[in-house]
Amino acid sequence: MNSDMILRTTNYYRILNRLRALGLEKVFAHNLADAAGVSAAVVRKDFSLLEIYGQKRGGYEIPDLLEKIGKILGKTDEPQNIIIVGCGRIGKALMHYNGFEGDGIHVVAGFDSDPQVYNDTSHPVPVYPINRLEEVTKEHDIKVAIITAPEGATADLYHKLLQVGIYGILNFSPITLKSTKLEDGTAPVVHNVNIALELEQIFYKLKFPKEE
Amino acid sequence: MNSDMILRTTNYYRILNRLRALGLEKVFAHNLADAAGVSAAVVRKDFSLLEIYGQKRGGYEIPDLLEKIGKILGKTDEPQNIIIVGCGRIGKALMHYNGFEGDGIHVVAGFDSDPQVYNDTSHPVPVYPINRLEEVTKEHDIKVAIITAPEGATADLYHKLLQVGIYGILNFSPITLKSTKLEDGTAPVVHNVNIALELEQIFYKLKFPKEE
Repeated sequence: MNSDMILRTTNYYRILNRLRALGLEKVFAHNLADAAGVSAAVVRKDFSLLEIYGQKRGGYEIPDLLEKIGKILGKTDEPQNIIIVGCGRIGKALMHYNGFEGDGIHVVAGFDSDPQVYNDTSHPVPVYPINRLEEVTKEHDIKVAIITAPEGATADLYHKLLQVGIYGILNFSPITLKSTKLEDGTAPVVHNVNIALELEQIFYKLKFPKEE
Repeated sequence: MNSDMILRTTNYYRILNRLRALGLEKVFAHNLADAAGVSAAVVRKDFSLLEIYGQKRGGYEIPDLLEKIGKILGKTDEPQNIIIVGCGRIGKALMHYNGFEGDGIHVVAGFDSDPQVYNDTSHPVPVYPINRLEEVTKEHDIKVAIITAPEGATADLYHKLLQVGIYGILNFSPITLKSTKLEDGTAPVVHNVNIALELEQIFYKLKFPKEE
């Protein structure tokens, strides 16, 4: 699957889980399309590439779809454990974020370099100093981290995360982190979410609507 | 420009501003490439499409580049005013976010439906009840909003924003908002940032590294 298709397929799975939670048993391509923000033709094409076929009268059984897509996505019942590196305001907000649990994502711990932050016991998850990164992440078998650190600390933290074998990174700092192949041949998976850059693009597209 | 090129060009501009702030006067394609997470060939190709040419000995003068790219992006000295709709933990964190100012992005106000939130005067910017959306945004000529509202409130808030003429939306809620052409022919510019979905994709790509 290419990146766009991974994005859409992951999204279908999330939406199907929500529809099932609402008690729905069946779904049509156009329902999924509406919720995913794509056209029904795209959903049908994706499903055809994934070798998922609907019923004669149209529509798909949700439990069946969830099982098939879940298998494709390698879904298990295990929670997807993550850590948050940099526990400033955004990091703390993400610790409290309740949009993760429904997707089986579990924030296990936070890390920060400031003793005032890691000695504070009021966080919803334990927060450790950065020098305990290796110990804590090995213990919980962590593979994915969110970086919400200040710009100046980001590159160093990224390096530290790679060193302890955390190869999945969601980076919210304004520094663009690159996925360069490591000595062992692994390529880290890095997604950069640059909030200011998203806004800049929106301003641009509003200013020059015809160019989009 | 297509979306990818808008993203890169906006990013070059941000990086150039930062390099100039550090006192640099000249930049090479590979410097920009490193900071933007692309290859130098991509930078050169983009510049050639934008009709920006370097000097004989290689490299570009930063002030010159900023002027040219700024013109292409329609940059003015006016701040880019935004509002934050939904002032929960993430919304509040973004109000305090200091990564905006360097890009000329200015959070003018927040909006929330909870009196406890909008009657609280400790926010760094004024927070208003949702029913003052039209009045406040007209007064400040706001065109762009960040939605950081709970899932259940998002679709309604999106509708309200469009009604008052706010056509640029950065949506952090897990609901995917669609840009459907409005009656006046305008297509809103919507960027959805779904944090859980980003993480899901990272987990998938780590699990199936060869498929990327």
